[in-house]
Amino acid sequence: MLLLVRTRPIEQRTRKSDGLSAFIVDLREAIGNGLTVKPIDAMINHHACELFFDNLRVPASNLLGFKVVLDSMNAERILIAAECIGDARYFLEKSTEYAKSREVFNRPIGQNQGISFPIAECFAQTEAANLMVEKAAGLFDAGNPCGPEANMAKMLAADASKAAGDMCMQVHGGFGLARDYHIERKFRETRLYQVAPISTNLILSYLAEHVLGLPRSF
Amino acid sequence: MLLLVRTRPIEQRTRKSDGLSAFIVDLREAIGNGLTVKPIDAMINHHACELFFDNLRVPASNLLGFKVVLDSMNAERILIAAECIGDARYFLEKSTEYAKSREVFNRPIGQNQGISFPIAECFAQTEAANLMVEKAAGLFDAGNPCGPEANMAKMLAADASKAAGDMCMQVHGGFGLARDYHIERKFRETRLYQVAPISTNLILSYLAEHVLGLPRSF
Amino acid sequence: MLLLVRTRPIEQRTRKSDGLSAFIVDLREAIGNGLTVKPIDAMINHHACELFFDNLRVPASNLLGFKVVLDSMNAERILIAAECIGDARYFLEKSTEYAKSREVFNRPIGQNQGISFPIAECFAQTEAANLMVEKAAGLFDAGNPCGPEANMAKMLAADASKAAGDMCMQVHGGFGLARDYHIERKFRETRLYQVAPISTNLILSYLAEHVLGLPRSF
Amino acid sequence: MLLLVRTRPIEQRTRKSDGLSAFIVDLREAIGNGLTVKPIDAMINHHACELFFDNLRVPASNLLGFKVVLDSMNAERILIAAECIGDARYFLEKSTEYAKSREVFNRPIGQNQGISFPIAECFAQTEAANLMVEKAAGLFDAGNPCGPEANMAKMLAADASKAAGDMCMQVHGGFGLARDYHIERKFRETRLYQVAPISTNLILSYLAEHVLGLPRSF
Repeated sequence: MLLLVRTRPIEQRTRKSDGLSAFIVDLREAIGNGLTVKPIDAMINHHACELFFDNLRVPASNLLGFKVVLDSMNAERILIAAECIGDARYFLEKSTEYAKSREVFNRPIGQNQGISFPIAECFAQTEAANLMVEKAAGLFDAGNPCGPEANMAKMLAADASKAAGDMCMQVHGGFGLARDYHIERKFRETRLYQVAPISTNLILSYLAEHVLGLPRSF
Repeated sequence: MLLLVRTRPIEQRTRKSDGLSAFIVDLREAIGNGLTVKPIDAMINHHACELFFDNLRVPASNLLGFKVVLDSMNAERILIAAECIGDARYFLEKSTEYAKSREVFNRPIGQNQGISFPIAECFAQTEAANLMVEKAAGLFDAGNPCGPEANMAKMLAADASKAAGDMCMQVHGGFGLARDYHIERKFRETRLYQVAPISTNLILSYLAEHVLGLPRSF
Repeated sequence: MLLLVRTRPIEQRTRKSDGLSAFIVDLREAIGNGLTVKPIDAMINHHACELFFDNLRVPASNLLGFKVVLDSMNAERILIAAECIGDARYFLEKSTEYAKSREVFNRPIGQNQGISFPIAECFAQTEAANLMVEKAAGLFDAGNPCGPEANMAKMLAADASKAAGDMCMQVHGGFGLARDYHIERKFRETRLYQVAPISTNLILSYLAEHVLGLPRSF
Repeated sequence: MLLLVRTRPIEQRTRKSDGLSAFIVDLREAIGNGLTVKPIDAMINHHACELFFDNLRVPASNLLGFKVVLDSMNAERILIAAECIGDARYFLEKSTEYAKSREVFNRPIGQNQGISFPIAECFAQTEAANLMVEKAAGLFDAGNPCGPEANMAKMLAADASKAAGDMCMQVHGGFGLARDYHIERKFRETRLYQVAPISTNLILSYLAEHVLGLPRSF
């Protein structure tokens, strides 16, 4: 487990990141020796847990410092953004197939613009978001600053996958809710990325303050 | 069970509703005698089932005719619309409470317009939808035609509850996905009303063709 | 002219409305005697002006007090909301007519759901907003408090007319921009109501703080 | 003038593009000799005209063929898309500046998330659209097929500039409508690109049919 802890009281910090450090923790040793893990039952199948700490001791040699956290944040956002693009393309593929094959009133439902236009809109939204993901990943791989791009990629891709998931549910009508189709599962799972690993509101705050130079809002 | 069946071949019909009849069926007698019921595992807790008919016989005295179906459609739409208003108000109440009490960066999150404005928007959308539900219900109770109002009420209220559910999830951040909060459950349940008992696309087709006089699109 | 002025220095006020008073001003006397009026050239044909005051004197008998201002605010919002409903219905009528009569690829464009669905959506949005306008007007006429309803009516109706104007432009394609059709004129005019007599953001702030009880955001 | 004409009756065509040819026309010779030009008074300052043809004769040597038209369509879409990105960035710059400097209730309005979040959202939307414009332009410059990218670039960039224009008007409140600020002029001008050189609905039809393989809807 990668654990971010405060190693100096908040009152003594000189900068925001002061006194924050990451440690690597061996879960096999920690559980039962100061760490209790309680899984959270959630709408999605990811394994989120509540952690309770009671005098858990970690060797000083496990200290990773703080910079690793900042480095990993952009990587995580780009990674999740890429995952969202995959989700969106899954929804687009499922919707397109179903719209071609499902017939109502003696014609495929994809012949209706009320079905085909939302699919086409989600396709364009996903392709644009993907270009931002690729740009952010390219900057990151080259070791260049990529904060604005990584955050935009995360927001745009999460929005694209959310929109595609909702569209896919709608294209499938009542069948979209049946577990056998797996659409409702992906619909639930991709909803997570509106709030994790960073919420849309925090990305907008970051862009407003640190990219556009607007005054801090909170 | 109220069962809608075709009692004359579709080729012989003279009007769209021709040869369609509703029957009341005693499930206790029918199951095992021509009717097999298989529950559908779904994203929501409603009890939707697949039905398999194999020479099920229903006494002629159980015939209800067809008009009862049309009558019940508007009633069903108004009823579901009212349910959606209830859902939306549940989400609004939960969001407002949480936005008042949850503190981040030493102040309630509801002090941020990024939180409070979406709540206020959903509130206005819900109140407007509710007025349409009340109008439709009033017309129905008085025995007056209410097709446009019942359909608009269903669409507006389902959209309001969907928007409020999504907003409520967002206000709660990661906690919105934890089953303990019950928000994710209502979020899943209210999604149903985008497609049932009638989908948004069919309501838009109805309004376009039968209220605004535009040409039929399919 | 109804003129709202500060009659006591802002530092000496005990409440927000303290030291604010409305006067009735005879423009025929005032212009040239302390008041200069300069029309503002604007996107719309309304007659907005900049006013320059230089020792304008108004008789004490022209004092109307402050309560008249508060009373008139709700009335103004309901009035403008009703105007927006009229705008929206103008756009809906023009769009529907054009969608029925304009033929492309040998069929009326209204046969395309990409045309008819946005019209139907705007229709439902307008009807719902109108119910709120009627509710607010009824409360006001009966002398009852109507702040929440007047503000929601203004916001919902202005949003409905803006959406309908945009939809109407889109239905008319390039012709929507030609002055002869008058659609672009109404499109420009109805845009005003997103910011006047009160902006959407201030309505959302009002609803959040005074109706939902959320903390003030500014 | 580049003139696209039908050079064979539509009944005799074997393919859609059959019998369509482009000519280069010398306007100085043509006007008064079979061509009458009547400017259209429009919401925007572009010079759109109605043309009336009465036995205009064009030398055979002015024939450019048909392929030139198809080639130029993608170029035009990419060009207009780039123009839209410019418009969007104009709106973003004006909004950001104003949000920083304009004070209401003793603080810059940009400190309100109701102002800063829409700016940040438009920023991300514009940057993503711009990546598609760059991709389409790169493909075109390299002589590669770019139909999907050129059409998506046009739609995404036109949507980004429209959203940014509307946001910019809202940030400026009543001042947005005053001609002196030039925002209302750009707001009117960028509205054109929702319908020209190709409307959003036709782009969605193209993507649905030719990129996603859905059945033709009209």
